[in-house]
Amino acid sequence: MTAPDAPLSGLRVVEVSAFVAAPLGGMTLAQLGADVIRIDPIGGNIDLRRWPLAPGGTSLYWTGLNKAKRSVALALDRPEGREIARALICAPGEDAGFLLTNLPASGWMSHAALSAHRTDLIMLRLIGNPDGSGAVDYTVNAAVGFPDATGRGGEPVNHVLPAWDIAAGLLLSTGLLAAERVRRRTGRGQEVVLSLADVALASAANLGYLADVRVNGAVRPPMGNELYGAFGRDFPTADGRRVMLVAISNRQWRAIGKVTGLAERLAMIGPMLDVDLGDEGGRFAARHAIAAVLAPWFAARPLAEVARLFEGSGILWGPYQDFGQLVREDPRASAANPMFAEIEQPGVGRVLAPAVPLAFLGTPRPDPRPAPRLGEHSDAVLAELLGLSGEAIGRLHDSGIVAGAEAP
Amino acid sequence: MTAPDAPLSGLRVVEVSAFVAAPLGGMTLAQLGADVIRIDPIGGNIDLRRWPLAPGGTSLYWTGLNKAKRSVALALDRPEGREIARALICAPGEDAGFLLTNLPASGWMSHAALSAHRTDLIMLRLIGNPDGSGAVDYTVNAAVGFPDATGRGGEPVNHVLPAWDIAAGLLLSTGLLAAERVRRRTGRGQEVVLSLADVALASAANLGYLADVRVNGAVRPPMGNELYGAFGRDFPTADGRRVMLVAISNRQWRAIGKVTGLAERLAMIGPMLDVDLGDEGGRFAARHAIAAVLAPWFAARPLAEVARLFEGSGILWGPYQDFGQLVREDPRASAANPMFAEIEQPGVGRVLAPAVPLAFLGTPRPDPRPAPRLGEHSDAVLAELLGLSGEAIGRLHDSGIVAGAEAP
Repeated sequence: MTAPDAPLSGLRVVEVSAFVAAPLGGMTLAQLGADVIRIDPIGGNIDLRRWPLAPGGTSLYWTGLNKAKRSVALALDRPEGREIARALICAPGEDAGFLLTNLPASGWMSHAALSAHRTDLIMLRLIGNPDGSGAVDYTVNAAVGFPDATGRGGEPVNHVLPAWDIAAGLLLSTGLLAAERVRRRTGRGQEVVLSLADVALASAANLGYLADVRVNGAVRPPMGNELYGAFGRDFPTADGRRVMLVAISNRQWRAIGKVTGLAERLAMIGPMLDVDLGDEGGRFAARHAIAAVLAPWFAARPLAEVARLFEGSGILWGPYQDFGQLVREDPRASAANPMFAEIEQPGVGRVLAPAVPLAFLGTPRPDPRPAPRLGEHSDAVLAELLGLSGEAIGRLHDSGIVAGAEAP
Repeated sequence: MTAPDAPLSGLRVVEVSAFVAAPLGGMTLAQLGADVIRIDPIGGNIDLRRWPLAPGGTSLYWTGLNKAKRSVALALDRPEGREIARALICAPGEDAGFLLTNLPASGWMSHAALSAHRTDLIMLRLIGNPDGSGAVDYTVNAAVGFPDATGRGGEPVNHVLPAWDIAAGLLLSTGLLAAERVRRRTGRGQEVVLSLADVALASAANLGYLADVRVNGAVRPPMGNELYGAFGRDFPTADGRRVMLVAISNRQWRAIGKVTGLAERLAMIGPMLDVDLGDEGGRFAARHAIAAVLAPWFAARPLAEVARLFEGSGILWGPYQDFGQLVREDPRASAANPMFAEIEQPGVGRVLAPAVPLAFLGTPRPDPRPAPRLGEHSDAVLAELLGLSGEAIGRLHDSGIVAGAEAP
């Protein structure tokens, strides 16, 4: 089921999941070449119909997050269905015996119960809070301080990107490969647990936000679209568009003065405010004066002219684009970008699908593959992993334990 | 230098990096037990003094993102310094020969040049745009649509969390372990390239935002702090605090009605608006009416009372907390959380440091270790990896090729 020379070809992972984080972790492994088998209850898990939907009702969200996997649909509410799931999770194979889940892993799906059937099972389990209580990206995000530091103040602003889910998903893929390395060296499987809240808390701490409170008593305030600690902000253009301009290095800073022709005026700011504009912190301190000098330049030019002047200049900048402008105007979001390919997604039609962003130059970049229809691979996986005959599989269908391809 | 039973103990990675993404990728590996040696120019790279700073000038950002690594400071602008760096990167060892970088990898640091000295070198390289042109989190974010979908509209709102850097860093750690698996099986090293813009573009596509434009012609609008496609939003409380409330499952939805005592009133919304409140999409359609019923309940109660009533109820919620409230009020951001430990960070003092969020239950969770002082391990690493004598190392110091511990 996987390209033979893909980085993770040969690896087989079972995923029992929903929503973003665990599915993204599994998809990352699948797009790197692992055979990732997502097991769902017949009829689909709670995320099967999440918005946005295609006109026919297929979820663009579900199909986006489950590309390149195989799908098996089982009656997980019945003992026979759970027994098949367990057999798939614990099926033999040196490169198998991996379970990735964000569902409550109790009873038959606990590590203790499963490892009785495969002692070297590696199980990656995403939970909400470190104590196991429920939390999702939205509630975690509210608690870790970022919404209060976003926007112009007055009220907190939630992020729209489920950033913690994405980070958690990628930590799950890292963790699975690290646990695989342990098993290869020692023979030992293990359970690896990841708390979504911990992902957010660790990030806030790693970036210095928590230490800033503890050491300096400082709480980072919201600053609109300005960078903290360096010069950077947005500027409207003459045609109602907007660009993000950033100067981190002195080279980038000098390029701004040179290309806009405003170097001399910008240089007046140093003595005027008694700051060193050759230093990130000085430019941050002088950011309002810098913006005052630059703003009329942007306001006098349409985006296309800014783009033409900045091209190849060493200036660090980018246009703001809504999702529509991104799709219509940016060649990076098209098949001209080697990461993307146009594929046929069952239930949706032609979509622009990304591969995993990692490009392994030692092997050809595998084209992205569509998400499965729910249950599409039930029969093939049962035959392949459990050695069940067509007749036995037919009986499982008849008794409602297994379901085949439904619309995704 | 690493705990002998940590998941990645034995692995040795050289990092030549700056800022967030590559350092986070390296730190993830280091906190999983790898020996990660960060090489910097003498005097430090461009990120050494990034804000926020401790009172003595040590960067809380740099120390946060480089925990558990070893630091070597070399005169990378001189041939002798570059030769030592190359020798460290290409030093022998079955579990060595890894380079992680986000710096321009040309000349001596190109994969071609380095792999002449170690043919099985694995090199992970972060770039900005897929064509190699410059891009940073801020400029990428502006382009991929999220700021235009954040806040209440009128103007785009940048995220404050460098979400793309974080995702890229975690993809680098996944990619390095995947490339290690390839090398173990085939003997082949390779270069793996990751574009920061591709990370963001893939995420926008994976979550269905791009397909929504292509398939439905729909551009996700900003919706303040409301969820899309389900019920969830923020509510102010009587004491000027605010909570995020989410109902994704029907069980969570019913719990809200039960605990607030407003189930009957909420049930009136279904017939009133002709929507099915037993469905996520129906609750999204009715979100303003739902909020109108719930808002007075929150407005009449202080946060502490809401917390007491919601505790253990099955309601999915969380308080908004700024970074100060998070540090002062939330036990998850304290040493009571097994992920955190109080450590002594040179140049800073006592800080609350997180381990990697992944908890490997098969091994004791290693305590977080501080970031090095710049150049702290120059002598030890040169002796250990290159077999240089104390005398030879002394000469390198004298000629300014190597520097020892400076303040971090």
